[in-house]
Amino acid sequence: MTTTLNAADPYVVVINLFSVEPDKAEQLLKVLCDGTEQVINKRPGFISANFHMAMDKKTVTNYAQWRSRADIDAMMADAASRQQLTKAGELATKVEPVFYELRATYMATA
Amino acid sequence: MTTTLNAADPYVVVINLFSVEPDKAEQLLKVLCDGTEQVINKRPGFISANFHMAMDKKTVTNYAQWRSRADIDAMMADAASRQQLTKAGELATKVEPVFYELRATYMATA
Repeated sequence: MTTTLNAADPYVVVINLFSVEPDKAEQLLKVLCDGTEQVINKRPGFISANFHMAMDKKTVTNYAQWRSRADIDAMMADAASRQQLTKAGELATKVEPVFYELRATYMATA
Repeated sequence: MTTTLNAADPYVVVINLFSVEPDKAEQLLKVLCDGTEQVINKRPGFISANFHMAMDKKTVTNYAQWRSRADIDAMMADAASRQQLTKAGELATKVEPVFYELRATYMATA
């Protein structure tokens, strides 16, 4: 399964950094993946979620694409989705989502 | 131009958050894009850079893929590359790179 980043796509990007104690990082990653697979990926407007483990295990980061801000707000207002987010939030020491627009993409040149 | 996120790719992902005063955000984005296009994208091991503007213009974030940590270290030791990074750093109030491995990708299900 692959995700495509293309500045021409009109998605809202949410990059969400979860700070975590390193010995809980794998558990947090699993909670995030399970919640996405069972609940969040069925929400209207969900495009993708991409989970990253920091080399030092102090941060787990989700790079997520949504169709619109309204779809994110609707997901946040959904009880089942909120339950998943709360479960992840309880394992983290800090949760810092930022909403973005992808502006430009560069690839290697020969 | 598009970037592909695939957990099977053995890349190092660097997600770098540049905090910035909103009235300098567009200038910072331009410095980052120019530096990537002119210098960084020619470095060995560079795969992609993807620049994001926060909705509130308080953060500009680069989602970058590199072949290895050694390639990133070599880029950071290169004078021309460092000059570009310094230029961006002077416009930002905080620069917070984190090194990751992409672990899992989920897409919408019907």
